[in-house]
Amino acid sequence: MSASVVDVLKWLRHGDFPDRADHWEQAGAVDAQGVREAADAGLLGLTVPRRYGGDGWSLPEVVEVHRTMAGFSPSLQSLLVVHSMVCQAVLRWGRSDLRELVLPELAAGTKIAAFALTEAESGSDIRSLRTTLAERDGEILVTGRKRWISFGELADVFLVFGMSDGGGSCALVPAGAGQRVSPEPPTTGLRASRLADIEFDATPTSANLAVGRPGFGVPHVATSCLTLGRVLVAAAAVGVAQAAVELATAHAAQRQVGGVALGDRQLVRGLLAEASILAEAAWAMVRAAAERVEERDPEAATAAGRAKVLAARAVSVATDHASRVLGAAGLAEGHRLTRLSQAARTYQVIEGPNEVLLDLVGADLLRREAATRQGGDR
Amino acid sequence: MSASVVDVLKWLRHGDFPDRADHWEQAGAVDAQGVREAADAGLLGLTVPRRYGGDGWSLPEVVEVHRTMAGFSPSLQSLLVVHSMVCQAVLRWGRSDLRELVLPELAAGTKIAAFALTEAESGSDIRSLRTTLAERDGEILVTGRKRWISFGELADVFLVFGMSDGGGSCALVPAGAGQRVSPEPPTTGLRASRLADIEFDATPTSANLAVGRPGFGVPHVATSCLTLGRVLVAAAAVGVAQAAVELATAHAAQRQVGGVALGDRQLVRGLLAEASILAEAAWAMVRAAAERVEERDPEAATAAGRAKVLAARAVSVATDHASRVLGAAGLAEGHRLTRLSQAARTYQVIEGPNEVLLDLVGADLLRREAATRQGGDR
Amino acid sequence: MSASVVDVLKWLRHGDFPDRADHWEQAGAVDAQGVREAADAGLLGLTVPRRYGGDGWSLPEVVEVHRTMAGFSPSLQSLLVVHSMVCQAVLRWGRSDLRELVLPELAAGTKIAAFALTEAESGSDIRSLRTTLAERDGEILVTGRKRWISFGELADVFLVFGMSDGGGSCALVPAGAGQRVSPEPPTTGLRASRLADIEFDATPTSANLAVGRPGFGVPHVATSCLTLGRVLVAAAAVGVAQAAVELATAHAAQRQVGGVALGDRQLVRGLLAEASILAEAAWAMVRAAAERVEERDPEAATAAGRAKVLAARAVSVATDHASRVLGAAGLAEGHRLTRLSQAARTYQVIEGPNEVLLDLVGADLLRREAATRQGGDR
Amino acid sequence: MSASVVDVLKWLRHGDFPDRADHWEQAGAVDAQGVREAADAGLLGLTVPRRYGGDGWSLPEVVEVHRTMAGFSPSLQSLLVVHSMVCQAVLRWGRSDLRELVLPELAAGTKIAAFALTEAESGSDIRSLRTTLAERDGEILVTGRKRWISFGELADVFLVFGMSDGGGSCALVPAGAGQRVSPEPPTTGLRASRLADIEFDATPTSANLAVGRPGFGVPHVATSCLTLGRVLVAAAAVGVAQAAVELATAHAAQRQVGGVALGDRQLVRGLLAEASILAEAAWAMVRAAAERVEERDPEAATAAGRAKVLAARAVSVATDHASRVLGAAGLAEGHRLTRLSQAARTYQVIEGPNEVLLDLVGADLLRREAATRQGGDR
Repeated sequence: MSASVVDVLKWLRHGDFPDRADHWEQAGAVDAQGVREAADAGLLGLTVPRRYGGDGWSLPEVVEVHRTMAGFSPSLQSLLVVHSMVCQAVLRWGRSDLRELVLPELAAGTKIAAFALTEAESGSDIRSLRTTLAERDGEILVTGRKRWISFGELADVFLVFGMSDGGGSCALVPAGAGQRVSPEPPTTGLRASRLADIEFDATPTSANLAVGRPGFGVPHVATSCLTLGRVLVAAAAVGVAQAAVELATAHAAQRQVGGVALGDRQLVRGLLAEASILAEAAWAMVRAAAERVEERDPEAATAAGRAKVLAARAVSVATDHASRVLGAAGLAEGHRLTRLSQAARTYQVIEGPNEVLLDLVGADLLRREAATRQGGDR
Repeated sequence: MSASVVDVLKWLRHGDFPDRADHWEQAGAVDAQGVREAADAGLLGLTVPRRYGGDGWSLPEVVEVHRTMAGFSPSLQSLLVVHSMVCQAVLRWGRSDLRELVLPELAAGTKIAAFALTEAESGSDIRSLRTTLAERDGEILVTGRKRWISFGELADVFLVFGMSDGGGSCALVPAGAGQRVSPEPPTTGLRASRLADIEFDATPTSANLAVGRPGFGVPHVATSCLTLGRVLVAAAAVGVAQAAVELATAHAAQRQVGGVALGDRQLVRGLLAEASILAEAAWAMVRAAAERVEERDPEAATAAGRAKVLAARAVSVATDHASRVLGAAGLAEGHRLTRLSQAARTYQVIEGPNEVLLDLVGADLLRREAATRQGGDR
Repeated sequence: MSASVVDVLKWLRHGDFPDRADHWEQAGAVDAQGVREAADAGLLGLTVPRRYGGDGWSLPEVVEVHRTMAGFSPSLQSLLVVHSMVCQAVLRWGRSDLRELVLPELAAGTKIAAFALTEAESGSDIRSLRTTLAERDGEILVTGRKRWISFGELADVFLVFGMSDGGGSCALVPAGAGQRVSPEPPTTGLRASRLADIEFDATPTSANLAVGRPGFGVPHVATSCLTLGRVLVAAAAVGVAQAAVELATAHAAQRQVGGVALGDRQLVRGLLAEASILAEAAWAMVRAAAERVEERDPEAATAAGRAKVLAARAVSVATDHASRVLGAAGLAEGHRLTRLSQAARTYQVIEGPNEVLLDLVGADLLRREAATRQGGDR
Repeated sequence: MSASVVDVLKWLRHGDFPDRADHWEQAGAVDAQGVREAADAGLLGLTVPRRYGGDGWSLPEVVEVHRTMAGFSPSLQSLLVVHSMVCQAVLRWGRSDLRELVLPELAAGTKIAAFALTEAESGSDIRSLRTTLAERDGEILVTGRKRWISFGELADVFLVFGMSDGGGSCALVPAGAGQRVSPEPPTTGLRASRLADIEFDATPTSANLAVGRPGFGVPHVATSCLTLGRVLVAAAAVGVAQAAVELATAHAAQRQVGGVALGDRQLVRGLLAEASILAEAAWAMVRAAAERVEERDPEAATAAGRAKVLAARAVSVATDHASRVLGAAGLAEGHRLTRLSQAARTYQVIEGPNEVLLDLVGADLLRREAATRQGGDR
């Protein structure tokens, strides 16, 4: 199943992937066959070590694939994001037997995982979760409601976060009995990503499926997963930004208005240039963040936040500029630029809106300054 | 039929207009009944003098209605834009008998007019139109293809721009024989505005329906109509911006995340404040431009350009900021904020994208500077 | 002494005022003769009613003068700001006998007033002042230290804010004994505005010179003065922005690079256009705020905040764009554009930095939303 | 003389360099002793290979030093820029004997070189130079006027660009007879960089000192030098941006207003975060461009343009945000933040203003798109 970066990129760009991806977005759902093919191409195990049957890629390699995929199917990319977040939680925080049990299936894509953290009242603030994980006799009973869970409709297993007696906890919960899965209205952006609203009503799961120690899980596991998620979403945002720049450049090169190519107008060249500069800068930040995550650098979470902020800005500017270059043609419902613009809007919000991330990045600057100052005082 | 501003605003806000408008946007078409009701409410004759059966409002009054309407139905507002542009062309550039003939029907809304200027290759550059208006024996034969004509599917009459022997010309052409009207794919933004692609194949129209003298029409009539159109679209953009700010403010006031109201976060208040300041500033520019158009000020075209640039920026910022405040909830396909965001994207492009308008405004600054300098040299 | 707007504008633009203003900025101080001439031109009594010997202008007239003056002498404009703030405090909150006593001298400019609110630790947060005003036997003893007091070096009287037993208080304190006035290092921006650091050491002033009732003064008097100050500073920022646009437009019109006029480059026209649009929008906001202050509208403080935010942004963009258009020539120390750019930097900070004002404007939106909601609930 | 990066950074940060640099900026001139010490520290030969007596550093190492130095002395950094540009011209385009003759002296700093390209009428448009280089009997006579030549007052040798019979040419011209060197008014930004206006009046130089073949020099040599210059100036802009962020962070951490640390205000943290994100992104672009220049990548010129655009934006935002955080204190004439802000303004203009670079970057996108399309058509 192990794939090479070059093979995967080729598969994404030159097979029938673009057409199939287009179909999913139109239909409003990535279908099971699509997921199967992605699994066969090795995409669900990119981040999983080879000893568990994954591709064992480094994160700087992985972000290349996410960037390219998002330009065609932002929805399938979002499946890879949540699936990878669960893989990482198990790999880094799961006990050895849990890793042996779960990772091969996740890497092979025979099981699809979704990340069940968000609740209506908690946003991305993990300290205010209302879902409970009550352990009793080797079993954990999960009760609560999770919202906007990407691929919640399709997933075979959820990584559910909540509170237990010992504090925050998380555990894998197989899809099935004791749950009510309702589709959320699709977002315009990643409209094939099969969002679900999931109610757990004392759903039992084995205590062996807990990830991390209770009371230890929420702060560290969630932060580590969110950091990965932010890097991958930022990569996707850059991919969408660059796809928009490519569309706009091709249009400007070919389209004549009043006998003059659009690309001969300086203000049009300025739009293309600004968008491409921001996209390239965001990409540099994404790669730098991916390296820090790979190296388990303590600055990784901040680096991911910085990359997400800049990538969200880049994709907003790039799709906006491309819309102005393409004019009326690019506004149509079916147009690829419309899709990219809608994905751009989603990227402003998911995995932490700008305000949350700016706060995190600013607080980190102050913390480091304080550390330097104290160091200097000695 | 004459209506008061207060009555109309009340009708827009408190009748079943918001629900009906919502239905049109969902269905992808303002229906004939909707147009009829708008006509009955006096909305199609707002800018037409009372002597022709219109409401005889001043433009500063008219923009109030357009601003409010766009917050509910950007599509119906766009009908009013193109209809008003044709009314103004007839009123200011039509001969007396044409005004008597046409304006009462347009004011009453028994005839709906569309503005047929844009071609695929000309953009808003009116000197490169390919459509021809050939006059022969008291008849004008119209041949050419017009694209993205708002309400082209519904209109009873088109104001068609093209070239004749004497130069640029324009004439009213009744919908009917000798035309092929095909729906354009709807834009995500004003998706109920029934865009059409219209091919005229030696379509005959009476020479009495010409507006302005041939060879005189295109530069002056079109500029005058585009100026009006820009002011009205700018008013709509402000309306959408302010609707987004209202949605976001209400959400921030009520929503608790982690036990804290969103509105208690300073970065959230900053988002609301920035959006509202830009929207208010754009509104001041719209009113100022409306006054200049009303007074036939020679600076009106530039003032309209300035208002459109700032309003497009305001609506982009306001819907972006609102999306960040509302988070996942505001991304859903049916959500009102999604509609407003899609309209915002359309407003970046229609009636002149930023780059065209910035060029116009910059050239005007240089022209005035040259005039001052020459004045000073004497 | 009463002056007309036209006369004053003519005096500012066409006398030797520009040269004299230039000299002050170079010398780092508006001199006493300059102040005297401004007084003789009626500039120190613009906002004071005629019955007290002032010009009795409405604020919308006054901001015209401030806008024009700041383009030549940002420093003298700042004298007018602080002097006007004190005039307004006395006029609106002083007892009748105080008004009769003080306003004629202030209007005539025989006494110059400065506004002594800011302290090192309080910023513009008036609740945390450390200065005390202790009343005893018909006398108030003032103790504390005020920083960055514009024209503190030159003023004949200070309006000092501080805490008394009854809460916040303020009183006029004649310059003189019991004070230590030290020049602050000049700011690069308004470098002739003679900033002072003033220490009051149990400085006595007559209890008759108190403005407003103790415990009542700080919240209302200070807010009312700051509101006026923000409108006037916003007017100045617009004036500087427009002066920068004029400089840049003249340069673009005349300067040839490589045989092409700068003004023929679209990106240069875009820079001019964007700057002029923002400046014009900010000016509309300043006038609207001035009208609200004039009408004692309860929304005046928020309107002033909005105007200040947008004007600060406009002047930042305009001087930045002008610098790019003028290139190396505009960077020289003596160049007028350098002066304007330095003033622009000051306007980002004085009378409330953006962050404070955005917070104020955002809080106001939420407050009004809550009021509407409660109204709707009834 | 060969130095290590660590040594040089230590020397810059911890010796008396900051104080001496401060003195130069105050005095308005880097003095000869300062240049000597920089030479002794190996700074003038950083980019020169060891075989010519230089440090032989790679450009990614060199930009580290430029970044750090600019935070203390933007003026001395600009000396290193122009000196390095001349070194690179000789190294890459000079004949072997010229390299042997000139590079050791330049690397040792016993001769200081300046880059004499800019003329009043040519901007950075090298095709419209008016200076002539006329070759006759083994001698070149240089006639023309160069403006705003950094360190023109101090340089021992100029690399002069102009037109000869064969087209564009350039040659080294020793300072001395046949020249009139007049100081330009200093810029507020890099006020110690000793700008000069230099008139060459048939100044003779040896034909052996020509760099590149006549008719070949201007397009390639100048572009290669400008590319290097842009990378180094971009590095400096990042250094100034990061110094501003550090100042602002330290201030926010320590300063209390109204009993609350500035750093506890979310909008202040947002200002710090945005500035630091842009600075970090620009730094990533600078390093990427430095690597391309090092590898003589054909995309190097575009990469340098991208880095310069983003770095100019980062330093503008960072100094602006820092000014808002520091408030009145940071506006004073002598304050370090004022220096940084003034340097930021200069960086908007030198080595190509944004508009020129955006045009270059946009044109490159279109060129690559055309190449791809043609490739695809085959």
